[in-house]
Amino acid sequence: MNEKIRIGIVGYGNLGKGVKLAISRYTDMELVAIFTRRPIDTIDTKDDKIKVANTSESHKYVDDIDVMILCGGSATDLPVQGPYFASMYNTVDSYDNHGNISEYLEIMDDASKASNKTSAICVGWDPGLFSMNRILLESILSNGKTYTFWGPGVSQGHSDAIRRLPGVKNAVQYTIPKEEAVKRIRRGETLELTTRDRHFRKCYVAVEEGIDKDKIANTIKSMPNYFVDYDTYVVFVTEEELKKNHSKMFHGGFVIRSGYTGKNNIHNHIAEFSLKLDSNSEFTSSILAAYARAVYRLNKEGHVGVKTVFDIPLKYISEKSIEDLCKNLL
Amino acid sequence: MNEKIRIGIVGYGNLGKGVKLAISRYTDMELVAIFTRRPIDTIDTKDDKIKVANTSESHKYVDDIDVMILCGGSATDLPVQGPYFASMYNTVDSYDNHGNISEYLEIMDDASKASNKTSAICVGWDPGLFSMNRILLESILSNGKTYTFWGPGVSQGHSDAIRRLPGVKNAVQYTIPKEEAVKRIRRGETLELTTRDRHFRKCYVAVEEGIDKDKIANTIKSMPNYFVDYDTYVVFVTEEELKKNHSKMFHGGFVIRSGYTGKNNIHNHIAEFSLKLDSNSEFTSSILAAYARAVYRLNKEGHVGVKTVFDIPLKYISEKSIEDLCKNLL
Repeated sequence: MNEKIRIGIVGYGNLGKGVKLAISRYTDMELVAIFTRRPIDTIDTKDDKIKVANTSESHKYVDDIDVMILCGGSATDLPVQGPYFASMYNTVDSYDNHGNISEYLEIMDDASKASNKTSAICVGWDPGLFSMNRILLESILSNGKTYTFWGPGVSQGHSDAIRRLPGVKNAVQYTIPKEEAVKRIRRGETLELTTRDRHFRKCYVAVEEGIDKDKIANTIKSMPNYFVDYDTYVVFVTEEELKKNHSKMFHGGFVIRSGYTGKNNIHNHIAEFSLKLDSNSEFTSSILAAYARAVYRLNKEGHVGVKTVFDIPLKYISEKSIEDLCKNLL
Repeated sequence: MNEKIRIGIVGYGNLGKGVKLAISRYTDMELVAIFTRRPIDTIDTKDDKIKVANTSESHKYVDDIDVMILCGGSATDLPVQGPYFASMYNTVDSYDNHGNISEYLEIMDDASKASNKTSAICVGWDPGLFSMNRILLESILSNGKTYTFWGPGVSQGHSDAIRRLPGVKNAVQYTIPKEEAVKRIRRGETLELTTRDRHFRKCYVAVEEGIDKDKIANTIKSMPNYFVDYDTYVVFVTEEELKKNHSKMFHGGFVIRSGYTGKNNIHNHIAEFSLKLDSNSEFTSSILAAYARAVYRLNKEGHVGVKTVFDIPLKYISEKSIEDLCKNLL
């Protein structure tokens, strides 16, 4: 590969910073510009060759950037930024609002087809790598059951939900798989599991002085969507303890498929894909960067429109040639 | 899907029998014929709709079969059968002779392109699913190391090598990963491992009466390619014990990628794909059957020539529609 793939980053939070680091590890990509809605002088990239510009200026770079990596959130950023950028650029994003994927897929397909560009959506570890394992293992072991577990790890959304309660100064929520269920599945048992059977939630909460802790604990435990369907444990700690012992953003999880083959289904097979991540955002960023390579190549070959991990052959995400891959990784 | 994909099986050993079972689990495929070099009246498919024919008659079925699943071995069958069938049919095979893949890929590409057909080669779990994880995880965690372990499980090739020794009546060889190395990798340590550091081999051997057991044990342990580079343990048992306790053809293994991100590589990430299989051949057969679907679809869309798991998007192996996949598995 002679020319480097020219990358732009939209949004410079944890994810955007992780993408910058990921690109620096590759020899076939270069970071051209970072787009932000914050004052541009608050961002120091420590590299004069990387431009920092306001998101409103992004349309001026269509000749300089091959792929825009969208690092905003799924709740409010991507539904707006996704189609906006797809109408001008090849894009990659980690849209993860499971309930609205079909709708998002459609607007991204319209936008990228209209501009003759390619957009990869839902590129992360779930949706993303976990989805790939779900389709792969279900297709092979058609007579079986797939289980997805998340954690142990910090859930940003659940931590935020606690932080928003009056009287709460700060909070960290851990999602933890129930060991007993996991053990039984790995042994080959077929289980019908409710939400409560699969995970529990542990919350470390710092509150203002004089606040009724029992009341706060009950409010958390009965919070609809977030906690009411789980066994939830609340531990009160000081802000200092929270900072000292609960500031790491680790995460992980696993997809297990248990399936049966043979006459009378006598043979059980267990396939498992698992992740143990010190930094959730940096790992997701690394996936986004690898798929930026795929999007660039797909577009060069004329494959325009929206793509998911189900559509993209694995060879497109590797820096290596197909000859090298067949010789050394197959 | 209205029409069923019409499948032919070439070779009716363990793999071929497993493919027949796998196809019976799908609603979008039907088994048309089994081709064998054995006398055809020795095979009872228990289904009158499935033809049994000699391999030499296989050219007569070009209008009746969409995909031929080649169930022969990599040593002598596939190098001949592969290009022969690819010159008439879409094919799938589980070629696994790692050292000769590039060469096999080339002759299969020539044969299938000349006939406007599509051939998927090296479709199994290694090469196959393990290769997919190697490319995926290396591309994402570019700063890291991949480890592949096989077992615990029965290695057919190694068992055969022992059986061929004079004085040996029967033998079963287990390949077993070294727990200590695996534990350290899963903890995030980066290891440089020799062959001996990763696996050991345990052999259960039944010998003829009066044979010198020490001599046999030494002959096994010093066998080049097969055993000399490993810690090899030999246990002598009776033929009855062998049959009773060592007749299960289980296998498995795992691919682990340990990688680093962040400033000064402070964040470690561990990704692992693992298999625990009661029946090695039936699991491989199930992969072949799923990829027969992919080959059929790729050919319909005009993608001719040789393909590996690196080339084939995951959506092609699923029975489900892309809409269904995006809604329920993404």
